[in-house]
Amino acid sequence: MAPKLDSYFKTVDSLADSFIDRLRKAVAIPSVSADEERRPDVVKMGHFLKDELTALGAHVEARPLGPQPHKEHLELPPVIVARYGEDPKKRTILVYGHYDVQPALKEDGWATEPFELTIDDKGRMYGRGSTDDKGPVLGWINAIEAHQKAGVDFPVNLLMCFEGMEEYGSEGLDDFINAEAKKFFKDADAVCISDNYWLGTEKPCLTYGLRGCNYYSIEISGPGQDLHSGVFGGTAQEPMTDLVRVMGSLVDTNGKILISGLDDLVAPMTDEEKSLYGDIAFTMDNLYESLGSKTGIYDDKERTLMGRWRYPSLSLHGIEGAFSAPGAKTVIPAKVIGKFSIRTVPNMEIEDVDKLVYAHIDKVFKSLGSKNTLKTINQHSGKWWVASPKHWNFTAAAKAVQEVWGVQPDLTREGGSIPVTLTFEQATGKNVLLLPMGSSTDAAHSINEKLDRRNYIEGIKLLGAYLHYVAEEPMKES
Amino acid sequence: MAPKLDSYFKTVDSLADSFIDRLRKAVAIPSVSADEERRPDVVKMGHFLKDELTALGAHVEARPLGPQPHKEHLELPPVIVARYGEDPKKRTILVYGHYDVQPALKEDGWATEPFELTIDDKGRMYGRGSTDDKGPVLGWINAIEAHQKAGVDFPVNLLMCFEGMEEYGSEGLDDFINAEAKKFFKDADAVCISDNYWLGTEKPCLTYGLRGCNYYSIEISGPGQDLHSGVFGGTAQEPMTDLVRVMGSLVDTNGKILISGLDDLVAPMTDEEKSLYGDIAFTMDNLYESLGSKTGIYDDKERTLMGRWRYPSLSLHGIEGAFSAPGAKTVIPAKVIGKFSIRTVPNMEIEDVDKLVYAHIDKVFKSLGSKNTLKTINQHSGKWWVASPKHWNFTAAAKAVQEVWGVQPDLTREGGSIPVTLTFEQATGKNVLLLPMGSSTDAAHSINEKLDRRNYIEGIKLLGAYLHYVAEEPMKES
Repeated sequence: MAPKLDSYFKTVDSLADSFIDRLRKAVAIPSVSADEERRPDVVKMGHFLKDELTALGAHVEARPLGPQPHKEHLELPPVIVARYGEDPKKRTILVYGHYDVQPALKEDGWATEPFELTIDDKGRMYGRGSTDDKGPVLGWINAIEAHQKAGVDFPVNLLMCFEGMEEYGSEGLDDFINAEAKKFFKDADAVCISDNYWLGTEKPCLTYGLRGCNYYSIEISGPGQDLHSGVFGGTAQEPMTDLVRVMGSLVDTNGKILISGLDDLVAPMTDEEKSLYGDIAFTMDNLYESLGSKTGIYDDKERTLMGRWRYPSLSLHGIEGAFSAPGAKTVIPAKVIGKFSIRTVPNMEIEDVDKLVYAHIDKVFKSLGSKNTLKTINQHSGKWWVASPKHWNFTAAAKAVQEVWGVQPDLTREGGSIPVTLTFEQATGKNVLLLPMGSSTDAAHSINEKLDRRNYIEGIKLLGAYLHYVAEEPMKES
Repeated sequence: MAPKLDSYFKTVDSLADSFIDRLRKAVAIPSVSADEERRPDVVKMGHFLKDELTALGAHVEARPLGPQPHKEHLELPPVIVARYGEDPKKRTILVYGHYDVQPALKEDGWATEPFELTIDDKGRMYGRGSTDDKGPVLGWINAIEAHQKAGVDFPVNLLMCFEGMEEYGSEGLDDFINAEAKKFFKDADAVCISDNYWLGTEKPCLTYGLRGCNYYSIEISGPGQDLHSGVFGGTAQEPMTDLVRVMGSLVDTNGKILISGLDDLVAPMTDEEKSLYGDIAFTMDNLYESLGSKTGIYDDKERTLMGRWRYPSLSLHGIEGAFSAPGAKTVIPAKVIGKFSIRTVPNMEIEDVDKLVYAHIDKVFKSLGSKNTLKTINQHSGKWWVASPKHWNFTAAAKAVQEVWGVQPDLTREGGSIPVTLTFEQATGKNVLLLPMGSSTDAAHSINEKLDRRNYIEGIKLLGAYLHYVAEEPMKES
């Protein structure tokens, strides 16, 4: 055990109420980045962090990002960057979080006021941003304070990067990270991001992989304008007819992607990897609970986790340009745009996937013998990310979990993407660890978002303990 | 030639300016039935008709229809019923039209003010409602006035039924017609509706058939709520995947309906019917012009007209519940509702079509092996209508066309439905004739709706002449 953890832990416990109070103050600032009118609150939240860190003796800067793209009248909220400690003998850890939140209105169905932290008798702390991502961001600040109050030397130099636009596409952040990689962030030895969740509710995890996402549009057009189906039905080739046939050719009910050649891009499963899934704390009931139904593809846990983490998937999201309202309308839409995306995994390169997708769609469309016009585009794409969980950054985190929670963490991947992860890895060239604080039931983007008191307080211990173990790990990078 | 037509025609010509002025006054009343705030204008338009008819000596009643279904605070506009002439020795003709109009705003792209009748140098009279259906409704009133001014005895007893909700589903009208069939409308010997259009721009037509429409929803649901495709893609069966596969099984690019057994319901083509299509004034360029493209199914006129009039068609209208906005959203929709309709023709009974549709969809869905839930419903249906074009009602109209326009009219059917047609036929048990005034380029529901001066003035002659020939036709019904 790292020598100073005992007194650090005790101090965290003794400061618990004041840490919860700090979270209460943060939740009370409705820093909704998607809402123009809330922009002053987002900025206010950034300055709240700046003030808290300054009071603790950190060097803090609020960096402007300029006007918001496509909304030039609106300034982006600043990135709050900070440095705590400058000891060249210590390791330097760069941590990331975000201080903006998803929109929330009481009338959406919240049981409590979304911007008032409300704690029930089971210690569930309800409030927008409690778990995503104000709790974890304050976790780092609380860890600094608890070290000071405990009189324990802070084990590393800490670089912090807290942004205010994560819930609105992290506008401007990539450029900022790339620009600062060799400047403000140049000393970073590794990166830690606390902005995701445990797989379940009981067992902590460390996350070392994320799927990528290629998002496509299939546009099929024919007539010059929408037509009346009574007048033109049976005389005109209809773009919707072609589109559903093309979309129906992409994937089957059991999620099998029907695009020829795509499977060949997927890294084969090794026996070693296969052996990892059995131990993960996850059950089919966990899946059914979060689905709200029993309409899963697989009946076993292992194949389900593989389907979520390490195999590609293809989802059909919808159709733009067709009739989508309730009721009945006898329209023949003139131009329809089908949307679908493919979640990508190692070793699927974005361009290789594009090529196979375009070839498949062209082939299917040609087979229809249609006079309509087809256009397929890649709307956006983000690459998958997989880190080495054997790196000291992960080893340190695993020891911290064992210390704080008394169990070895699950090593997990995630099905969705957190694009900033890959940006940090590519910009700094360092190992990136995802170290979650909250649990699977926290309802991050939904109504009644919460963070359990236990996850918050033990999470503060975890973040501090992680930094102590980081300081002790041997230098060899794996 | 009917004896009194010459002086009637001359009088129509001499009154042309005042008839156009009457249309100008009517167009100036923005009687938009879909717009709650315009309801007083709809009522005003009804009373305008009542006053004009009363001034001409007709017996007129404004019949209330009660509150509007689902908008109980709003009174439906009255049906204006009128009777002109009560001579038991004369035939009685019941005519129908509507005095409400589609919405129209200058900023939708109108070249002129939509509620100001604006006549260009080619005699095109632009204005909302000019052709649909104020011009034809005023046509009957103008015919009465011209007879009076010409000193020509009106050849029939005229019953009139003008409604104010046609563009909003004819709320309340079916019940009214059924209730009055043996009362106000009891003397009707035949029905004439002037509320459709020539097939082209040069040759008048008489319309004796309309397709019906069965409108269906296919609802497929699975998860309890929308899901994130990153988290659940590859682990959950997705309702959208099933839906596009089911929708894709219904019809092919060339409009062939793939529902087994449906073709067997369609009345076979006779040689006699087949011979009718060649003479119809319609070209493939007419189709391409109205499509705004060359994406027709057939390359020849005959098969195109058959596709529109006498064969069923199936159109996919859209999907409710999926992502339908511009941009990209990585949602797995939990419940999606596909909408499609089948245009029906003789001898397809609504219930027979339902049975085949349900059986087909059930079979295809079962073949998918999905755990999701399927529900198919018939949202609404209206039956096809075909009248006998050999009835004296049609013979009289054909003679009137020959007299006024110097050509034999095309005998046409239409692809769309005008539900009131079937209602009148079933309620009165009498032959119904569709006798259009406007041409195919009138843009009834679009911007820049117009009625050509020639079609209006010659149309008034046509309606009057039709009544004279009706009076002369032998009594035998065919």
